[in-house]
Amino acid sequence: MLGGNNVIYFHNDYAEGCHESILKRLSQTNLEQTPGYGTDPYCAAAAGRIRELCRDDSLSVHFLVGGTQTNMTVIAAALRPHQGVVCAGTGHIHVHETGAIEATGHKVLALSSQDGKITVEQVRNLVDEHRVSEAMEHTVQPKMVYISNPTELGTIYSRKELEALSAYCRSNELYLFLDGARLGYGLEAADNDLTLPELARLCDVFYIGGTKQGALFGEAVVFSNSVLAEDFRYMIKQRGGMLAKGRLLGLQFDTLLRDNLYFQLARQANQKADQIRKVLSELGYSLYVPGSTNQIFAIIPDRVLDELAKNFTFSLECRIDEEHRAVRFCTSWATKQENVDALCDALREITKKQKDS
Amino acid sequence: MLGGNNVIYFHNDYAEGCHESILKRLSQTNLEQTPGYGTDPYCAAAAGRIRELCRDDSLSVHFLVGGTQTNMTVIAAALRPHQGVVCAGTGHIHVHETGAIEATGHKVLALSSQDGKITVEQVRNLVDEHRVSEAMEHTVQPKMVYISNPTELGTIYSRKELEALSAYCRSNELYLFLDGARLGYGLEAADNDLTLPELARLCDVFYIGGTKQGALFGEAVVFSNSVLAEDFRYMIKQRGGMLAKGRLLGLQFDTLLRDNLYFQLARQANQKADQIRKVLSELGYSLYVPGSTNQIFAIIPDRVLDELAKNFTFSLECRIDEEHRAVRFCTSWATKQENVDALCDALREITKKQKDS
Amino acid sequence: MLGGNNVIYFHNDYAEGCHESILKRLSQTNLEQTPGYGTDPYCAAAAGRIRELCRDDSLSVHFLVGGTQTNMTVIAAALRPHQGVVCAGTGHIHVHETGAIEATGHKVLALSSQDGKITVEQVRNLVDEHRVSEAMEHTVQPKMVYISNPTELGTIYSRKELEALSAYCRSNELYLFLDGARLGYGLEAADNDLTLPELARLCDVFYIGGTKQGALFGEAVVFSNSVLAEDFRYMIKQRGGMLAKGRLLGLQFDTLLRDNLYFQLARQANQKADQIRKVLSELGYSLYVPGSTNQIFAIIPDRVLDELAKNFTFSLECRIDEEHRAVRFCTSWATKQENVDALCDALREITKKQKDS
Amino acid sequence: MLGGNNVIYFHNDYAEGCHESILKRLSQTNLEQTPGYGTDPYCAAAAGRIRELCRDDSLSVHFLVGGTQTNMTVIAAALRPHQGVVCAGTGHIHVHETGAIEATGHKVLALSSQDGKITVEQVRNLVDEHRVSEAMEHTVQPKMVYISNPTELGTIYSRKELEALSAYCRSNELYLFLDGARLGYGLEAADNDLTLPELARLCDVFYIGGTKQGALFGEAVVFSNSVLAEDFRYMIKQRGGMLAKGRLLGLQFDTLLRDNLYFQLARQANQKADQIRKVLSELGYSLYVPGSTNQIFAIIPDRVLDELAKNFTFSLECRIDEEHRAVRFCTSWATKQENVDALCDALREITKKQKDS
Repeated sequence: MLGGNNVIYFHNDYAEGCHESILKRLSQTNLEQTPGYGTDPYCAAAAGRIRELCRDDSLSVHFLVGGTQTNMTVIAAALRPHQGVVCAGTGHIHVHETGAIEATGHKVLALSSQDGKITVEQVRNLVDEHRVSEAMEHTVQPKMVYISNPTELGTIYSRKELEALSAYCRSNELYLFLDGARLGYGLEAADNDLTLPELARLCDVFYIGGTKQGALFGEAVVFSNSVLAEDFRYMIKQRGGMLAKGRLLGLQFDTLLRDNLYFQLARQANQKADQIRKVLSELGYSLYVPGSTNQIFAIIPDRVLDELAKNFTFSLECRIDEEHRAVRFCTSWATKQENVDALCDALREITKKQKDS
Repeated sequence: MLGGNNVIYFHNDYAEGCHESILKRLSQTNLEQTPGYGTDPYCAAAAGRIRELCRDDSLSVHFLVGGTQTNMTVIAAALRPHQGVVCAGTGHIHVHETGAIEATGHKVLALSSQDGKITVEQVRNLVDEHRVSEAMEHTVQPKMVYISNPTELGTIYSRKELEALSAYCRSNELYLFLDGARLGYGLEAADNDLTLPELARLCDVFYIGGTKQGALFGEAVVFSNSVLAEDFRYMIKQRGGMLAKGRLLGLQFDTLLRDNLYFQLARQANQKADQIRKVLSELGYSLYVPGSTNQIFAIIPDRVLDELAKNFTFSLECRIDEEHRAVRFCTSWATKQENVDALCDALREITKKQKDS
Repeated sequence: MLGGNNVIYFHNDYAEGCHESILKRLSQTNLEQTPGYGTDPYCAAAAGRIRELCRDDSLSVHFLVGGTQTNMTVIAAALRPHQGVVCAGTGHIHVHETGAIEATGHKVLALSSQDGKITVEQVRNLVDEHRVSEAMEHTVQPKMVYISNPTELGTIYSRKELEALSAYCRSNELYLFLDGARLGYGLEAADNDLTLPELARLCDVFYIGGTKQGALFGEAVVFSNSVLAEDFRYMIKQRGGMLAKGRLLGLQFDTLLRDNLYFQLARQANQKADQIRKVLSELGYSLYVPGSTNQIFAIIPDRVLDELAKNFTFSLECRIDEEHRAVRFCTSWATKQENVDALCDALREITKKQKDS
Repeated sequence: MLGGNNVIYFHNDYAEGCHESILKRLSQTNLEQTPGYGTDPYCAAAAGRIRELCRDDSLSVHFLVGGTQTNMTVIAAALRPHQGVVCAGTGHIHVHETGAIEATGHKVLALSSQDGKITVEQVRNLVDEHRVSEAMEHTVQPKMVYISNPTELGTIYSRKELEALSAYCRSNELYLFLDGARLGYGLEAADNDLTLPELARLCDVFYIGGTKQGALFGEAVVFSNSVLAEDFRYMIKQRGGMLAKGRLLGLQFDTLLRDNLYFQLARQANQKADQIRKVLSELGYSLYVPGSTNQIFAIIPDRVLDELAKNFTFSLECRIDEEHRAVRFCTSWATKQENVDALCDALREITKKQKDS
């Protein structure tokens, strides 16, 4: 993060607390006595709502606190010791989880990716290499494909792409796991053509992220493959993810998903991101990766960034050349319109000043 | 748990939400933007307050969400692969964490215990057996002693006992780790003679439990042994315990520990437990384990329990004989006086009715 | 081990090299070129011979180098992360493998045992406790039963006992795994009523030990449960047990099992052990554990042992009282008759001298 | 492997048994009784000889059975859970050990490499990226550098290169671990300028491979960094690598290293490889990777390979284009001169025939 005090944060989508309706309901229900560990009525209601939204009564739904915890628990639950998980080189499990997957004993098999996505061809090549080997048991057995939607670079999978991955996985005995830490932003993207029921059907397991989308914390794991769901509560407990006051998770998801607040908040964040993308385009800056969700990856001169950093935070993606860096701006459910306007104004002014100088 | 709807819960100390001052402060600060992962001012303030309470500026303090998560992360951070952790057979890590410690690769070396505590003599015997062996590398190397205070059976260690364990550990290159999931209840017990600064000094690492003592969730890990603290943030992240909005943890501990609310809530819970213990004694029921904290373990006839269960929940500890069970009642920071009175009245009435019949 | 130079070893059954027929055949075949990793004709022949001896053509047979390696590989292959393995407190996996099982992530659930064996009742009680719990996912899920035959205390399971364990396991979805590091000594014990085909049918997986029975090294793992055998070669490789020159294992087992040399050597060792047991009995010494295999556990006065240790090695089992210890003498396939006679003579002489003094 | 019956094997360097002097000595010492687990006089003698060859009396030496076992045991012993090991993308631990390193909980951080070697610059860049990150605890901490010498592609590190890697590692708190599965072939390469004492001094830990260099099996691990050697016997036992009859390992290394037989055998194998390389060059075939050790990587037309495969085995490295593959031929301590001549003749004949057709 670049930035300091009294600055406006655009460097991530978890800088604030939660939507006010959650706090209100926490207060209203605070002294109710409920059973622990996710066996309470709030979790039941939220799980029911998710099954309803996915139009599948058979889904198994569980609530965990955070993304790394969810990824490692799902993957450790699904794989046998000699099996590995395939993902993009930019995949969260590969580069931002301190080896959490490997700490559960499994190799991450990374595929190179420019936009955060992976293709069926890439997966097929990797699987073929591992399976046709003359001594295939000397290599890890690929068994799960992990994708993020939106990806870590803010891009989304089309329905066609997800269908292709799903079909390949099913005909090759691989599980398809979709990390939906920012799922709402993806489903509400202007160019998205994938629905939640389709997504649930195409994946073996996925999750609906709360932490970055209006909740204090929380990820809702959804299994459509019942084999993977077996004994999952044991796994949650063993991996430290079973919240004593599990109702906190149920209550948050129930609040966000009831009346589709979750999707509405995501849509608003995307629109604010679109406004920023539009200004960047007007000013002649290229995007590092094109996108339509709440993350904006742009290539901007150092001189502009240095000036901008006095009043705004953003995160550094990578250096492009001696004078340019790629940076990320995030909007979120909590981003204020006045702050978006302030960022756009600042970008215009600084750019103009730089050009004039 | 025995019980149902419309009953009063005494079966654990995490059935409600949190102290109202936490909810109030969450609301007040909700839209503040802060850095993530525990690097915010609230965590800094809470850590400072803990160092102040422990009278040791050098302590390293970290905040995690739950107890199992904390236990597994601390133990995995401290031990090399061939080392094990010694604890009571009733120890939470041995019997209630779905093998979370073993899942990090370490054996739990259990010592039998009637009251949840272990003695220096027991530890010494175990260590001696493992070290004098003619082929000691064929056995796990004991390297850490894990104790809970209060224990899982509600008992507490005296200062003398803790000093003895600490002295043995230090002269034998063992780490001493104290699970303080209910630490406040222990420190505020009428017969406790141990202070928090003493405890911090005698242990290598311990934690101050929030989940069962007024917080929505949270455990504050305190390292006095700086070797164990090294790179601990990596371990938190890897084990899935690093909360994105880490300030939620800092804010809760800061709120509870400021003005000593934490200790005051614990004292009140203990007093309510004392009231129940007094009634049990009057009615001639023995305690399964004597205690002075918020957990009450009593031996009660099945006929009384069956009647009681219609209006109250409690947890089953074990069967004593064909007509008696040992059960646990918990009070907590949230227990209402009217509910304690109701339980006491019910115990008196049902007992009287049973005797009369 | 007690003992020193120029002494006769009775403290274990792996002090010598291997049966001469193995060395001879190693020399004869030394410069043959074969494929590696157990895909050679010797392994195929040995596996075929084992299927023949077990009278089951469907068995999956694999060869590993040592016992700890075999135990950890089989258990890690069979269990999901939240599952544990039940065994006697004396079980090799519990006390003599430096936490190898826990290092694969699994808890060992130990049952107390005087003679090294466990009963169906013990297993049932443990399973019932873990399954009926109100929150069973807070405990490890028992999924495999590990027994040794002969046990670490030299005792053997009767056919009836093994049938009972097997029936319980199959009707309760538990795997039965038999550690046969000394299997030949067990099958050839005078009081044994179990055949190898029966044993193969009753267990899901077991192994035929070579290291302690005439081979330089090697354990032959036999799966009758094909689910457990799936992808086992991956597991062998991952756990470091896949020998490059795998033919060394196949050749040894083929040599030992052809013409039943393996069983003949075991029978001879048992007979030598019987001779020692008879002398101990004549001299009035009790056995620590009665037995009929190649391990003798006897309670002998310290004064006798101190004298005996000048010329013989044996291993210390435990202290019985201030004047007695339980010690173990082992015979093996390599034990010379003259050494057995020498030990018997020494026991007689020293005992007489002590009594006279 | 391409090939079949009655063919001559060039596809690896472990197709035969062992040097005849080992078999002879195994026979001579077969019925000696020795203590187990590597505490015997043969292991002591071999360790002494290794210290002598390395000119360092302080080295800690241990014997294990195989390479994957050695790699995983050394790495698991050295690293804390959040630490990873850096290696070439072709590194044995990355691509040929079924995720054995990950199964011990550690991430392998792979660097791209054309010739199997990695440079200080590559390691520095990777370490810098991991350390300067704004949230470095979200990534694995690089702590060990793993190299193979010779590499998996038959190349060797010069003294200057190894000195540079060693200096970087030491000034940046990284361990340097050298996999010497084929160490002799490397040290005896015509263009090698590195001595064993230098290598021992520059690495924290390395091993001297036996399996591919004249032994039946066995790798001798040598620690010059005493911190890494601490409690290593526990680690060997826990990971299943402690051979009961450990003397088999000591005896083999003592036999091979006494009078430098080990090095002489390697030199002969290299010379035979040179003869093949010379013929390939004469015939106009390029090497896939240039080299001077016992592995030859050559690019050869499919039509030639198909013909060659009728009488010789070799291993497929990769496809180069539609008409060419890169293949590996290995010589070894056991390669017969007549077979080398036969291979060279066949290459000449087939090539000529193809050109003529």
